Amino acid sequence: MSAKKNTQAPESYIQGILKGEIPVLSRAITLVESTNEKHRELAQKILEGVLHKTGNSFRLGITGVPGVGKSTFIESFGKEVVKRKHKLAVLAVDPSSNKSKGSILGDKTRMEQLSVMKDVYIRPSPSGGTLGGVARATYETILLCEAAGFDYIVVETVGVGQSEVAVSRITDFFLLLMLAGAGDELQGIKRGIMEMADSVVITKADGSNLEKAKAARTEFARAIHFLQPPDSGFTPRVEICSSLENKGISEIYDLLDSYKTFAFANNYFTKKRKDQQFELLLNTMDEQLKSAFYSDKEIKKKLDQISKNGSKDILPFSAGIEMVKKFLQK
Amino acid sequence: MSAKKNTQAPESYIQGILKGEIPVLSRAITLVESTNEKHRELAQKILEGVLHKTGNSFRLGITGVPGVGKSTFIESFGKEVVKRKHKLAVLAVDPSSNKSKGSILGDKTRMEQLSVMKDVYIRPSPSGGTLGGVARATYETILLCEAAGFDYIVVETVGVGQSEVAVSRITDFFLLLMLAGAGDELQGIKRGIMEMADSVVITKADGSNLEKAKAARTEFARAIHFLQPPDSGFTPRVEICSSLENKGISEIYDLLDSYKTFAFANNYFTKKRKDQQFELLLNTMDEQLKSAFYSDKEIKKKLDQISKNGSKDILPFSAGIEMVKKFLQK
Repeated sequence: MSAKKNTQAPESYIQGILKGEIPVLSRAITLVESTNEKHRELAQKILEGVLHKTGNSFRLGITGVPGVGKSTFIESFGKEVVKRKHKLAVLAVDPSSNKSKGSILGDKTRMEQLSVMKDVYIRPSPSGGTLGGVARATYETILLCEAAGFDYIVVETVGVGQSEVAVSRITDFFLLLMLAGAGDELQGIKRGIMEMADSVVITKADGSNLEKAKAARTEFARAIHFLQPPDSGFTPRVEICSSLENKGISEIYDLLDSYKTFAFANNYFTKKRKDQQFELLLNTMDEQLKSAFYSDKEIKKKLDQISKNGSKDILPFSAGIEMVKKFLQK
Repeated sequence: MSAKKNTQAPESYIQGILKGEIPVLSRAITLVESTNEKHRELAQKILEGVLHKTGNSFRLGITGVPGVGKSTFIESFGKEVVKRKHKLAVLAVDPSSNKSKGSILGDKTRMEQLSVMKDVYIRPSPSGGTLGGVARATYETILLCEAAGFDYIVVETVGVGQSEVAVSRITDFFLLLMLAGAGDELQGIKRGIMEMADSVVITKADGSNLEKAKAARTEFARAIHFLQPPDSGFTPRVEICSSLENKGISEIYDLLDSYKTFAFANNYFTKKRKDQQFELLLNTMDEQLKSAFYSDKEIKKKLDQISKNGSKDILPFSAGIEMVKKFLQK
């Protein structure tokens, strides 16, 4: 994209997005993803201009280990979402820069049928950056998509580990995809991620794998029973599905729909969004503070000295207090 | 203690501590624990004056659930330490203010024989405060005790949960006391604490409990085997002991001694202390930064507003960046 296009007035972006113009939406997302200061300022103005039209979507986070069939599931599930008269946006969170550069092409080819459908917008992963930066960009991309009329947003984790936490912080419902394994079903996925899940779906429940999937469902249902119930009050469910045979997909749509109804009724939906926003604010402030502090030249120099020369002759607590005091006085 | 005593010149404290005068040491520790700004400044000067005489001790952290017999163990173990020609100081970390106020008397009566011995200094828990504050005070108390000639420092966790982490950060060796339970031996203690332990001691291995203790030893040894090996390269051991019958106590002393020899030889001992100091410095800076930020009047007001009015109309990331920028510009 040329620099010129990105220096358009915010107003033309805002109008285009609110009209649902995809090319304008895409350009605005690029601004949101940019690390260029001027792009960020423009993005900020655009976001402020569309904020009143955001929030009206269901934000679904999807995670699972590599090989679980995430793209195939999203392809089948996405078609169901469109059938139910939603406008669907599919985003990805992938903080690992090198891999994601390759996935730009990957994202589109992975979801062949979905990507050519009307009412579907698939946005490749932003190309790398810190987890904090990617989380911010993804959150703001959700807002832009909502303003452009997309009312069902799927956020897929591509990286493993920390990105699940980031995604669960910006979505309404966190769906964990799992495979029916041979034996210990709980291997390979961290307990913590299991605890974050609002429900679990066992994929590839077809052919000779169907019986295994059913057994895994029983086992997971038992495992979930031992975890702390989520704050929502909604009891997590374990479903099986086959993207290949398109079985169980509409049931999963219904499950999510019943969650939405449930969480709206007990007001948890709104509360969670509010809490998420506050958490994001607090996290951002913590990160910004640290980043300003540790990128300060004098602090850097001092820390370098200490870590080189050893610190036998310093009092770590007093030195820490002193260094922060000096930093803040500047 | 009168205010007058605390305004003595730092030099008189420094001389007294280096001569091993216990009343002076006690008063200096009180300064270190004080939240009064002037006391802290004086404490700082005293610490700087004795710093060259610190570091020459073995710092042993001891933890365990209530009822495991920590005081009884420290009483027996402490006598062994004295027999081996050490000067022993016993400190406690207890971040819960209300309980610890009562333990001032408790600490002394709990360790009846130890407390009256020459070459033993028992310091009651500082009366409350934040975990960060207590950790700092305990760390600086270790330094003062070392300067006063104590070369074996036991730091006992009184609180449960977070205080174990704090203690492991300021000690050379972390010893976990456990009871032989009836059945699931790993209940009641968090896996994370198990992972922090450099070795485990099963207490109350006497009378009808002896066989159970032996069985528990086997089970713990197996459990430890599955944990990640500690950075020291020292394989954690599981010992049993009876404070009542004074059995296994000198073996535990020997175990710790062999660790010391091992960790000195592979240079881990020195490296760990250096890393600990650096970590303490970084943690202190993080805490100080946050504390300065969140106690800022304007930040407080703004956050109050947001959490009251809801935040639908703010962009959490941009708002966070903005608030930190404004704070740092002041």
